[in-house]
Amino acid sequence: MGLIVQKYGGSSVADAERLLNVAGRVIETYKEGNSVVVVVSAQGDTTDHLIEKAGEINPSPSKREMDVLLSTGEQVSIALLAMAIEKQGYPVISLTGYQAGIATDSNYGASRIKSIDTERIFRELDRRNIVIVAGFQGWNRFDDITTLGRGGSDTTAVALAASLKADLCEIYTDVDGVYTADPRIVPKASKLNEISFDEMLELASLGANVLHNRSVELAKKYNVNMVVRSSFNNNPGTVVKEVGSVEKILIRGVTRDSNIARIAVMGVEDKPGVAFRLFSLLAKENISVDLIIQSIGRDNTKDISFTVSRDSLDKALLVLNSNLSLIGAKEIDFSDSYSKVSIVGAGAVNNPGIAATMFEALYDADINIHMISTSEIKISVLVDKKDSDRAVNVIHDRFKLDSLQ
Amino acid sequence: MGLIVQKYGGSSVADAERLLNVAGRVIETYKEGNSVVVVVSAQGDTTDHLIEKAGEINPSPSKREMDVLLSTGEQVSIALLAMAIEKQGYPVISLTGYQAGIATDSNYGASRIKSIDTERIFRELDRRNIVIVAGFQGWNRFDDITTLGRGGSDTTAVALAASLKADLCEIYTDVDGVYTADPRIVPKASKLNEISFDEMLELASLGANVLHNRSVELAKKYNVNMVVRSSFNNNPGTVVKEVGSVEKILIRGVTRDSNIARIAVMGVEDKPGVAFRLFSLLAKENISVDLIIQSIGRDNTKDISFTVSRDSLDKALLVLNSNLSLIGAKEIDFSDSYSKVSIVGAGAVNNPGIAATMFEALYDADINIHMISTSEIKISVLVDKKDSDRAVNVIHDRFKLDSLQ
Repeated sequence: MGLIVQKYGGSSVADAERLLNVAGRVIETYKEGNSVVVVVSAQGDTTDHLIEKAGEINPSPSKREMDVLLSTGEQVSIALLAMAIEKQGYPVISLTGYQAGIATDSNYGASRIKSIDTERIFRELDRRNIVIVAGFQGWNRFDDITTLGRGGSDTTAVALAASLKADLCEIYTDVDGVYTADPRIVPKASKLNEISFDEMLELASLGANVLHNRSVELAKKYNVNMVVRSSFNNNPGTVVKEVGSVEKILIRGVTRDSNIARIAVMGVEDKPGVAFRLFSLLAKENISVDLIIQSIGRDNTKDISFTVSRDSLDKALLVLNSNLSLIGAKEIDFSDSYSKVSIVGAGAVNNPGIAATMFEALYDADINIHMISTSEIKISVLVDKKDSDRAVNVIHDRFKLDSLQ
Repeated sequence: MGLIVQKYGGSSVADAERLLNVAGRVIETYKEGNSVVVVVSAQGDTTDHLIEKAGEINPSPSKREMDVLLSTGEQVSIALLAMAIEKQGYPVISLTGYQAGIATDSNYGASRIKSIDTERIFRELDRRNIVIVAGFQGWNRFDDITTLGRGGSDTTAVALAASLKADLCEIYTDVDGVYTADPRIVPKASKLNEISFDEMLELASLGANVLHNRSVELAKKYNVNMVVRSSFNNNPGTVVKEVGSVEKILIRGVTRDSNIARIAVMGVEDKPGVAFRLFSLLAKENISVDLIIQSIGRDNTKDISFTVSRDSLDKALLVLNSNLSLIGAKEIDFSDSYSKVSIVGAGAVNNPGIAATMFEALYDADINIHMISTSEIKISVLVDKKDSDRAVNVIHDRFKLDSLQ
């Protein structure tokens, strides 16, 4: 018996049958004597349909109005899930982001939760209501609707779990948990029973698509007990938690991210301040940069290469090309024919054998490495997109990840 | 130059093209120097689709959750219309019922507006924003979403016009205005240039489907300048206004309502209190009754006949049959093969010739009259459904309504 926050993604609530299935799970948890708060996403493709509808009218609508539009998707879901629970005779109430007290900043389309006023939710829980909360949305100080951007519903769930001091935050999705690799690429991929917040953060930001990294950051910050499970079966899922000291060197998984593009800024002067000017220009346009490599200076010039998400490529090129003289660069080169393949595991980098093993596996498979980047717990390489599936598989094999749990 | 409230119905905003057309009209009004508040309904069949979705999950969802669901329809419309106006470069902001300050009672699904806090709307108008308000929805004292029920968007528009002391309330729909009869039934029907609130009320409640009677009642109460126009052309429409003293006897229109059923309560005791018990039972179930006829007592029993909307028939029969002994009735008879045909016009009843002319027209066409009911400004008869189109036409002809304006 305790307070449990459950989050169900769009595919888990995509139609009437699935909603009734979710209602059954929620009721099971409630019948065990728990207080239950449920966060839901918009059904299936709803958000995409709404974006399409907007696009037919205005290719660049204001973000404020986009948020008014998109937030309806989750509002439909909360009402339908509440109805599914009512049908089975249990007390339930749905709440929009505003009603749930979720206060955000005013960065429409990508707002951050500032605080949660838990008064209404606790009042409903005290009445023994199951509480259904719209994910992805909040409310700002101008009395306007905001949305949290990609992965927003996960963030809502974790933020609620932290604010309500929930005993557990269950993230229900369409896969059994966190895998050592995407099972669609690596059929032998195995499910992890547990993973640390830091490892999950690297996996999430590397395109594992199970949990958004904002939600993992938040869970780590507030030490929220978290488990990732499937809404379609009763498998135990993957527990995400703070791990004390990691003794064993362990590769947790291999990921691939093809939604990237590489940009090379060629022939910049080899003097202080160049990198600062370059990346502050991009930061001002809210463009995230990854895998930065700077060549060793030669003839008093150097090249700086980095990757951005492919969605940001056009914007990044526009910014760079219109500031060539400010940056002091000769030309801008780019390519979107690469994928980023990474291995994640606490201690990976500090053990020299790990990187060598990874590179050897790629060499044996005749896969060329274009860029390399490392962090505390990950090693990433850029390879040709056509080689990326093979790269993930040979690395997965080499580290024997199919026998991992 | 003034403050104008415009309301666009679901068919006027059904798709991107129509939304852009509406945006054009709104901007025209704004460019003339007016402050513009626009109320919109849900697009096309959206509300029906949402009701269907709910029905797949729960055949009898709570009205509270139904309101959470249905209110998304108008929220989508306000965002899309705002985007359409943004596209043409004009300042605009969309507001949900809550944001627009529309406070209602808590009768979910059929709430009444209690008050409107106009602070936010005036603030936005002061900034020279075009203000788009979601029709049909409000907010109650429990911080929950409510909806106003059928015709709710008209009511929102008129209530806003009254609260904002608007100079004009324009109701845009898919017809040119108020007609002497439904043009689909009577091809020669003519459009009225003006009509009084009272006449409009009778027409609305008799199934003319142009304006909901709640909105007309409200307009009459606050003396709102109102015009009904088409959003598809620039015809002047029909002005609805308070008419001082009506000198001329004038039949304004003929209407038909086929969504009715007749119930006969047979063999009730001929003593006081019977009608009271009967109709209070129905009122308790929120069933509206029309055209009540009580036969003259005979053998110490009498029959009471009345009509209800066909949607209420099952519920009415259930209530009556399970209370036969309380009512003291022998049996309940019913039929849904009738239509109600009515003529509306100030002074109609006080001029004996009007009723006689109507009955004569029906007699000449060999159409049988089953029940008759009159009010200050209307005369209604019940005829066989199969005769109803013909009935409307012969009455329309007899009163030469095609030459009316």
